[in-house]
Amino acid sequence: MKNYCFGIDVGGTTVKMGLFRTDGQLLDKWEIPTRTEEGGKAILPDIAAYALAKLVEKDIARDDVAGIGIGVPGPINAEGVVPHTANLGWGYKEVTKELSELTGVVCKGGNDANVAALGEMWKGAAAGHRSGVMVTLGTGVGGGIIVEGQIIVGANGAGGEIGHIHVDDEIPGLCGCGNQGCLEQVASANGIVKLARWMAQENGAEETVLELETMTAKDIWDAVKDGDAFADKVAERFGRYLGLALANIASTVDPEVFVIGGGMSKAGPVILDYIKKYYVKYTFKGCRDAEFVLATLGNDAGIFGSAKLVIEE
Amino acid sequence: MKNYCFGIDVGGTTVKMGLFRTDGQLLDKWEIPTRTEEGGKAILPDIAAYALAKLVEKDIARDDVAGIGIGVPGPINAEGVVPHTANLGWGYKEVTKELSELTGVVCKGGNDANVAALGEMWKGAAAGHRSGVMVTLGTGVGGGIIVEGQIIVGANGAGGEIGHIHVDDEIPGLCGCGNQGCLEQVASANGIVKLARWMAQENGAEETVLELETMTAKDIWDAVKDGDAFADKVAERFGRYLGLALANIASTVDPEVFVIGGGMSKAGPVILDYIKKYYVKYTFKGCRDAEFVLATLGNDAGIFGSAKLVIEE
Repeated sequence: MKNYCFGIDVGGTTVKMGLFRTDGQLLDKWEIPTRTEEGGKAILPDIAAYALAKLVEKDIARDDVAGIGIGVPGPINAEGVVPHTANLGWGYKEVTKELSELTGVVCKGGNDANVAALGEMWKGAAAGHRSGVMVTLGTGVGGGIIVEGQIIVGANGAGGEIGHIHVDDEIPGLCGCGNQGCLEQVASANGIVKLARWMAQENGAEETVLELETMTAKDIWDAVKDGDAFADKVAERFGRYLGLALANIASTVDPEVFVIGGGMSKAGPVILDYIKKYYVKYTFKGCRDAEFVLATLGNDAGIFGSAKLVIEE
Repeated sequence: MKNYCFGIDVGGTTVKMGLFRTDGQLLDKWEIPTRTEEGGKAILPDIAAYALAKLVEKDIARDDVAGIGIGVPGPINAEGVVPHTANLGWGYKEVTKELSELTGVVCKGGNDANVAALGEMWKGAAAGHRSGVMVTLGTGVGGGIIVEGQIIVGANGAGGEIGHIHVDDEIPGLCGCGNQGCLEQVASANGIVKLARWMAQENGAEETVLELETMTAKDIWDAVKDGDAFADKVAERFGRYLGLALANIASTVDPEVFVIGGGMSKAGPVILDYIKKYYVKYTFKGCRDAEFVLATLGNDAGIFGSAKLVIEE
């Protein structure tokens, strides 16, 4: 059994890199810029160079490296091929094949939201569970479905695209995906702000500490904690949409645990209370006892999950 | 490699049994009554006796039997234990352990809707696909989710309980599960009849060939085919609910194919048209090209899928 591996999380601005022992211990982590110019052609060579340099620095033999796992912001199939990843500049790219040729080490790839879910299942909030669903409430709503320790990638790389579950015909405007009524439109950090404005329009002006034009998701959750009645109504509606979506996911894959992560999860346990209230209302009775936990790995979830891709149990 | 196996499908009235070659050829099939009296204590001994007798009849050595797969109408966990199956008379029962002791052959178990899905994926409408979702439109709405050739059983045996996806807050009455607004309330054979009556009440009397008090699901689909305007509206609403539920499943597990089965699927391809229309509207764009097919194995799906449980690929 080899003793080391790398977990890589490629973002549009920086690439996060981690060197791990295969027992899951994070030995070192660092970031490099994501050079997206010229079709992002430097991204994989940069990663390879920094990984190999780290081996020299740590006096680790390449033969003792089990592999390199890499998470990318977009669909990637089981063969490690991305059709197109706009924010990296990539067109069609055989990511794991190229990175493997550059490093001489086995590589495996996954979608960033999916590997973050795998990371939280392995060493984060859901450690010890075999099946779980992670929801990332950030600029958008991402997700990852883990069953028996494996990511559900899906036939089109769309497994865990839970931000695009349809929750309401009445939501104003369109989602970034082109559809109308997606969970992301009301449950992302941007979405909850739009939800609050929509509710204010629907119901007429209500007394609230919130500045409707300039408020952020954090402002809304702060107001909830301060007992603002309007913010509470917004949180209830947010909880209803997300609780409904998770209930319907439960009737499909019946996970042991739901992990709530992403920037908005920093609001803390209060966010779980609003989600669970509606989850319990809508879910199939056999699934009512699923656990709800907040993510614990933060921005490191991606490097942990990517590393796990190359570690056999 | 052993050459034979059994697929068993236990129902509340009859047990369907099949003897297969492990390449998937069905050699013989037959039914025996399900003796539910006295806590259903005779069910497994009956199955064992008929299976062993069939081996004698066919002059097959027990050593040449790869195993017995058994589908049961209710939750069954990965260890082959059912907590309670009301319509078989069973309380807690170690199904596969008992059947294995009775026969001297390896046994594996699954939920009936899940094994039917596995059967259709193996030798039925979705043969050749690695991932698929089967929906059974019968007295209720059942389902099974297959990913990479494996059933998603779920933490509580509720994987694929897609009849209990919540689709509408306004549906009158309660589902058998105790919730309100489940897909099953409007998309099962009973459900579509109730849906039609609800719509007739909502909209006032419309001209229709349907007799609202006595109509069946078949009557509704016959009327759809005859161009009845009210029946068409009912089919649209049915299609919207089911298409929405399947779209949301796609954003979770992203299957290659959806298989529509159960008694109501005998209405034929027209039923797919109504479902697909709304599936395409609601689903994430990456999942729009999923195939929709009608089940082909009919009542044999369960014995095929049960047999597949004991066959390694």
